[in-house]
Amino acid sequence: MAKTPITVAYGDGIGPEIMTATLRILEAAGAELDIETVEIGEKVYKRGIDNGMDPKAWDSVRRTRVLLKAPITTPQGGGYKSLNVTLRKALNLYANVRPTVAYSPFVETTHPKMDLVIIRENEEDLYAGIEHRQTQQVYQCLKLITQPGSERVIRYAFDYARANGRKKVTCFVKDNIMKFTDGLFHKEFERIAAEYPDIEHETLIVDIGAARLANTPERFDVVVMPNLYGDILSDVTAELSGSVGLAPSANIGDGFAMFEAIHGSAPDIAGQNIANPSGLLLAAVMMLIHIGQPSVAEKIHLAWLRTIEDGIHTRDIYRDSVSKKLVGTDAFADA
Amino acid sequence: MAKTPITVAYGDGIGPEIMTATLRILEAAGAELDIETVEIGEKVYKRGIDNGMDPKAWDSVRRTRVLLKAPITTPQGGGYKSLNVTLRKALNLYANVRPTVAYSPFVETTHPKMDLVIIRENEEDLYAGIEHRQTQQVYQCLKLITQPGSERVIRYAFDYARANGRKKVTCFVKDNIMKFTDGLFHKEFERIAAEYPDIEHETLIVDIGAARLANTPERFDVVVMPNLYGDILSDVTAELSGSVGLAPSANIGDGFAMFEAIHGSAPDIAGQNIANPSGLLLAAVMMLIHIGQPSVAEKIHLAWLRTIEDGIHTRDIYRDSVSKKLVGTDAFADA
Ligand SMILES: CC(C)[C@H](C(=O)O)[C@@H](O)C(=O)O
Ligand SMILES: CC(C)[C@H](C(=O)O)[C@@H](O)C(=O)O
Repeated sequence: MAKTPITVAYGDGIGPEIMTATLRILEAAGAELDIETVEIGEKVYKRGIDNGMDPKAWDSVRRTRVLLKAPITTPQGGGYKSLNVTLRKALNLYANVRPTVAYSPFVETTHPKMDLVIIRENEEDLYAGIEHRQTQQVYQCLKLITQPGSERVIRYAFDYARANGRKKVTCFVKDNIMKFTDGLFHKEFERIAAEYPDIEHETLIVDIGAARLANTPERFDVVVMPNLYGDILSDVTAELSGSVGLAPSANIGDGFAMFEAIHGSAPDIAGQNIANPSGLLLAAVMMLIHIGQPSVAEKIHLAWLRTIEDGIHTRDIYRDSVSKKLVGTDAFADA
Repeated sequence: MAKTPITVAYGDGIGPEIMTATLRILEAAGAELDIETVEIGEKVYKRGIDNGMDPKAWDSVRRTRVLLKAPITTPQGGGYKSLNVTLRKALNLYANVRPTVAYSPFVETTHPKMDLVIIRENEEDLYAGIEHRQTQQVYQCLKLITQPGSERVIRYAFDYARANGRKKVTCFVKDNIMKFTDGLFHKEFERIAAEYPDIEHETLIVDIGAARLANTPERFDVVVMPNLYGDILSDVTAELSGSVGLAPSANIGDGFAMFEAIHGSAPDIAGQNIANPSGLLLAAVMMLIHIGQPSVAEKIHLAWLRTIEDGIHTRDIYRDSVSKKLVGTDAFADA
């Protein structure tokens, strides 16, 4: 098999540890990858590049079209743009796919049957980044919802449901208040749902939807929503399933794709070899499927499941009741 | 004791049932109230009044300054303004106080120790209602955050913490993305927190804050945040504590106050005498404290607790494991 070129960024904080662990596993499993390593994040910001990624790194990603990215740290203070948001917009990564699955009884969770995927619109909403100070005391931020942007991600959600044997797509909006913006998202949802009669659909107001997600996540299958709701609620579902440390995400566009954990760079525990590499590893599994190496993906996923089932757990998911052995990042990867 | 004049609105759906039950309890407990009843909601909308409340009702509220309000139904379709939002803005009700407490072991919950209060900014944010269609395909909504609006609600949160023996105030914002708007809210929070050295304070990014709320709500005490986050997350915490059916809310301004349940009018179960009147009843308890009848409030609260502890439960919180008797709205109120 020809090797697939990918770009890899080690990131900041716990990034390098979990990326090293992940790449070690990818190699051991026989992934055919031609890896280009780029530097992004804190050090690059500090070199004065306001989005945290230099032209060489951009070139690499534009060439390979696939980025496996560890979390980065954005320096405190003004003048720094979020690299995540910049990447999503520059590469037109319109769908952020965030599966959360309970691995009960191996990982403690209050919702052993949950198995859902949040598909979050990834470029618009308040993330458009249009903010201004009208007076010293009045600040505004523009929430943007467009027809093409909504159609694209909603269609992606229905296609995803079909391709993955999922039965229902739920839409969350707040169109009792935002009748134009969220109303448009809702209208597009209904219009597109009609083209997928084999998939059930329903729409919930985001507040009550969020309550039901927290209460009975096992009731949901695929859930599609505007950017900010998805940001907040995918952290909630990940945590309910066991730990944000387990949750991967795929940022998907028509030309490019970026894979990452949903958690941050956790500088407080960096360098201690205690971080859970699972989020990034499962993101790498999504990447392998995306680039057409599903059998390697399957192999890694199964090995990972076996490790979790054997009770070999990192600190974040370690519970006396279900875990057998507390391990560090390296030992987890070995297992 | 002189009777305190209040305005009461029976609302739509399950509104009339739960209001009748609530008023019956208030009377039995000896609340000294001079009640003016007004009609709001669906019927008023349908008379062509676009905010669901006619001038006579406005007069009453402006006179009594206190509104006890059952949920209403806003008719489907365009041209109707949310009465909730209209009331909050017209009466300058800047703080929305939403306590959620677990009544474990009497009501089933995964978080038996949770006892927190979300204080939600209640007039600004995307609720300012400034939306427009730029083209057929591009819609925008303006998120508004002001210095006075933020200061007011944050100060309220710290004063509330002090007055209620609470130890910590946490702030949720997304100022890694919204550096101006949420950044302003955050800056005001830090500035005001410094004036309350007796109260701990901390700030979390709303996504990870939401995850921690869902995972360890018992870790939180008072949580203050912009409007929309508070809308979504107060439904989540209410549900985690047992049921949205139990959660009251107080909308507080300097001149007026409005008390209501956080749930909606649930037209699907209306008229069946099965709705849980607890949310509205506990809102009435908050009202009694607000108008200076704390001993009546205490009496009702204790009677309510006893009913819940006796396992006399309405359908929404009935669980074989903890409940003893399944009752309807009326019988619950009798108890
Ligand atoms: C780091 C931040 C900009 C990002 C977001 O808000 O989208 C993160 O929270 C995420 O969910 O991927
Ligand atoms: C009915 C709706 C406008 C309202 C809101 O969004 O504020 C409700 O959800 C609430 O939380 O009180």
